Order: sequence, then C-alpha cells, then structure tokens
Amino acid sequence: MPATVIDGKKIAEGIRTELKGKVDSYRSKGIIPGLVAVLVGENPASRIYVNMKAKACQKLGIHSEVIKFPEDPSQSELIDKVEELNHRGDIHGILVQFPLPKGLDEFEVNLKIDPAKDVDGFHPENIGRMLIGKPTFLPATPLGIIELLNRSGNPPEGKHVVILGRGNIVGRPLAVMLAQKQKGANATVTLCHTGTQDLSSFTKIADILICAMGVPEMIGGDMIKPGAVLVDVGTNRVPDPGSEKGYRLTGDVDFDSIYPVAGAVTPVPGGVGPMTIAMLLSNTVKAVEIQVG
Amino acid sequence: MPATVIDGKKIAEGIRTELKGKVDSYRSKGIIPGLVAVLVGENPASRIYVNMKAKACQKLGIHSEVIKFPEDPSQSELIDKVEELNHRGDIHGILVQFPLPKGLDEFEVNLKIDPAKDVDGFHPENIGRMLIGKPTFLPATPLGIIELLNRSGNPPEGKHVVILGRGNIVGRPLAVMLAQKQKGANATVTLCHTGTQDLSSFTKIADILICAMGVPEMIGGDMIKPGAVLVDVGTNRVPDPGSEKGYRLTGDVDFDSIYPVAGAVTPVPGGVGPMTIAMLLSNTVKAVEIQVG
Repeated sequence: MPATVIDGKKIAEGIRTELKGKVDSYRSKGIIPGLVAVLVGENPASRIYVNMKAKACQKLGIHSEVIKFPEDPSQSELIDKVEELNHRGDIHGILVQFPLPKGLDEFEVNLKIDPAKDVDGFHPENIGRMLIGKPTFLPATPLGIIELLNRSGNPPEGKHVVILGRGNIVGRPLAVMLAQKQKGANATVTLCHTGTQDLSSFTKIADILICAMGVPEMIGGDMIKPGAVLVDVGTNRVPDPGSEKGYRLTGDVDFDSIYPVAGAVTPVPGGVGPMTIAMLLSNTVKAVEIQVG
Repeated sequence: MPATVIDGKKIAEGIRTELKGKVDSYRSKGIIPGLVAVLVGENPASRIYVNMKAKACQKLGIHSEVIKFPEDPSQSELIDKVEELNHRGDIHGILVQFPLPKGLDEFEVNLKIDPAKDVDGFHPENIGRMLIGKPTFLPATPLGIIELLNRSGNPPEGKHVVILGRGNIVGRPLAVMLAQKQKGANATVTLCHTGTQDLSSFTKIADILICAMGVPEMIGGDMIKPGAVLVDVGTNRVPDPGSEKGYRLTGDVDFDSIYPVAGAVTPVPGGVGPMTIAMLLSNTVKAVEIQVG
C-alpha cells in the first residue's frame, strides 16, 4: 500500500479556523491582536515570507504591520526600533525577519525583543524555558511539525523519532520538544547530522523520520523502514530548464522512491510550510492571552 | 578483557591543578575569585554538597562564602539576597543550592541571578545560549561528563551516544551539548526516558551509554554492546544492613554484571561526582574571565 500523503495545507486551514474564533472573540471585546514584522534589506525570499505572514494575519483579523528599512540600518537603529515596538500596547507580537544583512547581529536583536512578544520563540530566555519545559513561545516550524504529526493520526508518543539536521531553527529545538514528558510528545529521539557515521543505520530504525538537512532528495526508499512516517522539512530549489521559472521546489525526500515504502509522508510544498505560518499566528494569539489575559 | 575503570577523581585532580594556575595568576594581580553558595533549609545532602564545594574552593585559593538562612526565608527575601550578590564586585559566581524548601520557586530564583555570575548554568537565558551554541556557562555535571569522556581517551565525536534519563540537570542539557558541532562533542545522540519502548534495543546499539535514571543497578551486561563505554551518573542509596551507615551508594549500572562486557566504565563513587565539582570551579574561574577580562 503506498504512503498516505499528509495534507499540511488542510490541517493548517483547520488551525486557522480555530484561531479565527479566538481573534473574533478578542475583537468583540475591543482588543485587536497586532503583529509587526521588521524587514531589513532586499532578500527576495524574506520579502515573500513577510508578505505571506502579513496576508495570513489580515485574513484572520490580526492587525499586521511591516516595518521596512529601505537602506540597511545600523545595529543601534534596528535595536531602537525593536525597543519602540516592545513598548507599543497595540502590538502583541514582534518578528524580525532573518537573515539580516551582513554586519548586523541577529543574536543581539533576539536578545532585545521583549520575551513576552517574541512570537518566533528565538529569544534565548524562551529557548531556555523550552528546554526545561516551562511555559514559553515554541518556535513555529518545530511546533508545526508536532501539530502535523498529532493531527494527521501519527502521534509521536512512545515512537522512535530520528531527526536529520541540527539547525537552530528546526532540528535542535524539535529534538528537545519531542522528548518532553507531555501529551503529543514523549518520543524517544535521535538527532543525526553531518557528523553522524552510517546514517542509514539510523534512518532505517526510525518510526518517524524528520528530514531537515537541506539536501535535495537525499532520502530514498532503501533508507527507511517500511511503514515509517516521513516529515520533509526541506525546501530546495533545483534547476529545471523545463519549468517557467527555471527551477522547481523539492524536499529532502526522494518522493517517488519512498512513496511505495513509507506509511505516510508530507509533501513539498504543502506539508510543513503552511503549518509554520499557522503556528506563527497561533503564537500571536497566545501573546495576546499573555499580555491581555 | 574486562572494562577499564575510568578514574574520575584523578582526572578531576588534573583539572583542579590547571585551574590552580589560573587562580594563582589572578591572585598575583590582586584579583581574588569569589564564589557564594546560598543554602536554605536543613536538607542534609544539600549541606554536605555546599561544604564540599566550599572546601574545594578554599584549596584552590577561591574565596568562598556560604550564606545560610537558618529559617526558611520568603521568596522576596531570597531574591533580595540574590540581587545583593549580583551587585557585589568581589563575588564572581553565585549558586543557590537546590532543592529549595517547599513554597519557594526555584525557577524564579534562577531568573534573578545575573547571567554573568550564573556558574551553575541554570538561568534560562544561559540554557538558551547553550542550545544555540553561543558562549555561556555550561551546567557542571553534563560538562564534567564530556570532559571525562575526552580526557579518558573515549571522545564522543562520531559515536552514537545513548542517554538514559531526560532530567533538566543531566540528560536533557547533555543531549544538546553532545550533539553540538564542535571538537569534543559532535556525537549522534539518542535520548531515552520513561516513555521509551523496548529500552534495551537502544542500549544495545550505544557506543557510549550515559545512565542518569536514578534506578539502582538497572543496566546489566546483557543490555550493552561489548566494548561500550558506560558513564554512570546514578548515586542511589540502597539499604545495606551490613554496613556501618545502614546503606551503601550504588550507581544505575550493575557494575559486576557489565564489568566483563563493557570497554570502560565510570565507578560510583569516584566517577562523575568529582568532575561535577571540578567543573563548578572551572565555571567560577570563567566567571572571573568574563567579569574582569
């Protein structure tokens, strides 16, 4: 039996509907949730992401602002802006779109965002809270992956989850979150990376395999356990002269090869991507709950 | 060939000798490193630990103070004391001995310690820095285990390390630290816990097995791979009517059973324990480096 394709778009849509109810309820009390995205520089992907986030906010009734620096600001100009936003009562969530242009220190920017408005969950204090299981904003992509697993009928509880890739945005926080002693998590977790020897000895024993290496179509059907659940976090552009844009988007999973072997798989696009934005919206609503009650 | 017994006491002694050189050098410039331990309540184990730490400081030439609250303070009295210590220029490191008596909030106390003086590495901001690989104070026990592995000729690099136990003091931070992309770490890490199914399927594929469950002598020779390196973090008291104290100290490893199978093993006592104190001293010297330069 070929793999079930997990519909991230549909699951994200369901989450947005739940959130819409909460936003409506706040609005009926005169409280309008507000999210600001700070955009620095001319990175095309960053501009696309920020636009997508802004549109998603508007659809939900969340007030959305995009603050653009047409020319690169100094570190202190950027920090001043963040601190101004920290003090605005009408703004509940702040995100600074990364990567920042060279010369600007992303870590220092994260440190200056009020942890109570840090809807990306990138402030080190919030990361620390995550590790020790204290209430915090959980980063959107790992949180989206955990929601996707649970809502698609593939709960990680008691399962062996193998994560490929130890990045700060996905692999590392996800490993910590999946191993937490709580409902929807409680998995045995193995974190693999470029230093791992005999990678397929690990991929072959995974009940759930999370692919977040950023290597196009690296994971094939011969590397997985029959029936395994595959979550593909990769979004790689590979040259495709036949397409209009000259490239196509592909994941870290060789879809055609794993399709007859896996039990379930998330597609690229339409898998993890839509969940990330839904979780950012969820964190924004949570920020209102924290700040307004 | 039976297992090599890793002598934690001797390795810790070597580290203390290195640190003594640094302390002497500071003292010759008129800088006396200072560590304060705050002791609340009458927990006998806490009193023993604090005394051991104070003595270890004194031997090295580190100024040591123990602040005792003979009666349980209020949360705000305790926090006031921490803030007073944050401002003292002669004190470079602050540790509050846990567990605190019931009714006192340990997490809030950790939040109030100046991160630059947080030699236990328990402030959430420092934990967050650890996760994303930024400079920070690393918690003493996991750091001691990594030093122990590297200095005993069992570097974790490229190895499969299986950690049993997801506590906030050992298992969880150790998993993160061992998977870092840096010399002395860079291991493939599996984190197992009470939610793990078929535990021995994981222990049997570990090159290095870290036992931090707090279950006396749970790991036997039939559960490990021949030649594996075992780190025993357990310090369990088990009743022993034949002994003077009425109990004996034992680890999570059934030593006699694994001895003929393992490649190397840390004993209890005399393995991880001495390393923990050595790393606290190391963090105190590091605190001086941060604050004085």
